[in-house]
Amino acid sequence: MRIYLDNGATTKVADEVVKAMRSYLDINYGNAASLHMLGREAKEAIEHARKIIAQKINASPQEIIFTSGGTESNNFALKGVAFANKAKGNHIIISKIEHDCVLKASEWLQKQGFDVTYLDVDKYGLVNPKSLMRSIRKDTILVSIMHANNEIGSILPIEDYGTICREKGVYFHTDACQSFTKSEIDVKKMNLDLVTLNAHKIHGPKGVGALYIHKGIRLAPLLHGGGHEYGFRSGTSNVPGIVGFGECVKTHKPEDIKKMTELRAYLIKGLLRIPHTQLNGHPGRRLCNNANISFNFVEGESLLMHLDMNGIAVSTGSACSSSTLEPSHVLLAIGLKHEIAHGTIRFTLSRYTTKEEIDYTIKKVKEGVVKLRQMSPLKPGLKYTKSKQQN
Amino acid sequence: MRIYLDNGATTKVADEVVKAMRSYLDINYGNAASLHMLGREAKEAIEHARKIIAQKINASPQEIIFTSGGTESNNFALKGVAFANKAKGNHIIISKIEHDCVLKASEWLQKQGFDVTYLDVDKYGLVNPKSLMRSIRKDTILVSIMHANNEIGSILPIEDYGTICREKGVYFHTDACQSFTKSEIDVKKMNLDLVTLNAHKIHGPKGVGALYIHKGIRLAPLLHGGGHEYGFRSGTSNVPGIVGFGECVKTHKPEDIKKMTELRAYLIKGLLRIPHTQLNGHPGRRLCNNANISFNFVEGESLLMHLDMNGIAVSTGSACSSSTLEPSHVLLAIGLKHEIAHGTIRFTLSRYTTKEEIDYTIKKVKEGVVKLRQMSPLKPGLKYTKSKQQN
Repeated sequence: MRIYLDNGATTKVADEVVKAMRSYLDINYGNAASLHMLGREAKEAIEHARKIIAQKINASPQEIIFTSGGTESNNFALKGVAFANKAKGNHIIISKIEHDCVLKASEWLQKQGFDVTYLDVDKYGLVNPKSLMRSIRKDTILVSIMHANNEIGSILPIEDYGTICREKGVYFHTDACQSFTKSEIDVKKMNLDLVTLNAHKIHGPKGVGALYIHKGIRLAPLLHGGGHEYGFRSGTSNVPGIVGFGECVKTHKPEDIKKMTELRAYLIKGLLRIPHTQLNGHPGRRLCNNANISFNFVEGESLLMHLDMNGIAVSTGSACSSSTLEPSHVLLAIGLKHEIAHGTIRFTLSRYTTKEEIDYTIKKVKEGVVKLRQMSPLKPGLKYTKSKQQN
Repeated sequence: MRIYLDNGATTKVADEVVKAMRSYLDINYGNAASLHMLGREAKEAIEHARKIIAQKINASPQEIIFTSGGTESNNFALKGVAFANKAKGNHIIISKIEHDCVLKASEWLQKQGFDVTYLDVDKYGLVNPKSLMRSIRKDTILVSIMHANNEIGSILPIEDYGTICREKGVYFHTDACQSFTKSEIDVKKMNLDLVTLNAHKIHGPKGVGALYIHKGIRLAPLLHGGGHEYGFRSGTSNVPGIVGFGECVKTHKPEDIKKMTELRAYLIKGLLRIPHTQLNGHPGRRLCNNANISFNFVEGESLLMHLDMNGIAVSTGSACSSSTLEPSHVLLAIGLKHEIAHGTIRFTLSRYTTKEEIDYTIKKVKEGVVKLRQMSPLKPGLKYTKSKQQN
């Protein structure tokens, strides 16, 4: 039995997506910038995908720029605004729970002379709109706050941040890598200027993403060159990847959200029956597929390995930083102690997850926690009574 | 009949490459940064590809960094050296026939305060090593000269440039997108510090490339984030793409070079029988698959369309700039007049090209040229005698 509960890290490419991509590898393999038939066919395929993605977030196709993924889109948004709007100001605001690529890009911009404010979050990982309001200055050029957190799954009120930024005349960027297709994004209603999207979290291929760029935004390219993608992003278009991206958005079904939400609730309920556990992130405003649980007196990596040996794939923190021993910056930002943060596991479901898989997972987690607590030097006089935090 | 002679723009993904990539889409779909089995399998696949590519250019695997393609690698090399070596100097040297992504990245760096020298080339598109020597200053931090030109196919003596730069203590970068696997690259023998490689020109997938980074080079990341690729390039690894890249390098056969060289010579000979034609680029030091021919009194785009209607895909200039009406900067740099540059077609073969396809192409080019010259307002009193430039 192999159970994949690490869909926050990446997902299986859906069968229909593989099918859609397939011919663009070795039959319709043209370069979309070529003038001949094979090139024009590739171009058409890209424009078709662009329309699907634009429609999904209520944007115009011309506002969707394809990139190599979420990390590129986030770097592009931050550095692109910074370099193109220096004359206006040098102040950038982000939250403390952003993905590493937003954090590290910001740190680099600081070294280039930009001033970065890092906003605190509450215990659920939400930024208070009032504190955003207060942090905006005359020289602020960009606010970047993610839509849904990749670790704890909380969905942030980006519509509030968007409204504030629009009123203040400051660009607002949101990283929607985890939320795209799972939580509604309407760039017009929500007053969004820049939105990072990617494919491989939603049963599309790795190596392709997009940046929504509100018409008229001043943005310097990150990849200079032949002037592809309306001059915003050069480089030969990854035609099969883009086609796959369009297809995975097109074939997304709302009923999958419902299914994942129910199974996720069932998983959380089952895991919180284990004593000395807690759910991290907002209980209500959360991604339909995310359960982030801390198991006290347990080392997260050890529990991960125990589950892995039983054929269950999960993660501690985000995949991107899984090779470091640092506790998650997100868990620390919501106020968790180091030792609790270290005992945290992220379970992320997909539309392919079944109830049987969840039952088996709950069983194996319980086994693992009991075993690991028995070996733990920190173990308490544990009694397997009901957890304090059932919800 | 569909004949693809635009392999300089992109290539068909080879069957064996598709086969190698296939399972990484929907079976071994793990994130290479994940700790569980699916993640470790993905990581192993990437490291296998890294070894193959490193070996091909006599590098260590740790010196190969995967990117989203040639444009990213070139931007990364130039901007990465520039930002990391500001303290040493701000002077960069490139040639006038570099790919747009090197040219535009350099122009952008000029706006950021860097000083760029653009080296002239001779009529074959070669940079004189002596002029490179003379242009190096105390504040020079980087020289970037391509290995083989993407339009005219000339192969530049990078070993000479490398030796000069190593002696002067200046980093040397070469864009080898067109030459990789077609012309030998040995980073040690040639004293190369940075080499741009990509997959989609050699029957690998689009959306994946690499940058060779000589151990110890000071380079700022272009994509900041989770610290993937030894900290040089963040972003979820494009596992199927990287596997495909490795496979297309592994399955490359030296006899394909021989085959392409012979067919290419046969094509050039056939086309130069048409009067008022000339071969651009070096006759001997040239890519095995490139024939770049100017047809006087003919509009390149019109000839391209004529061939396209007959099922033959070729290009004018490079695909990347095919949508502009500007004459090619490369053809102007080697001294072609505007009207000659405008009448130029690039034919680029692959290992799949056959003699029958070449015969048919020569026939259709002849037909097209005759037809277009009859309609040309510039048409001379043409007599279909032997061309002056048979070689």
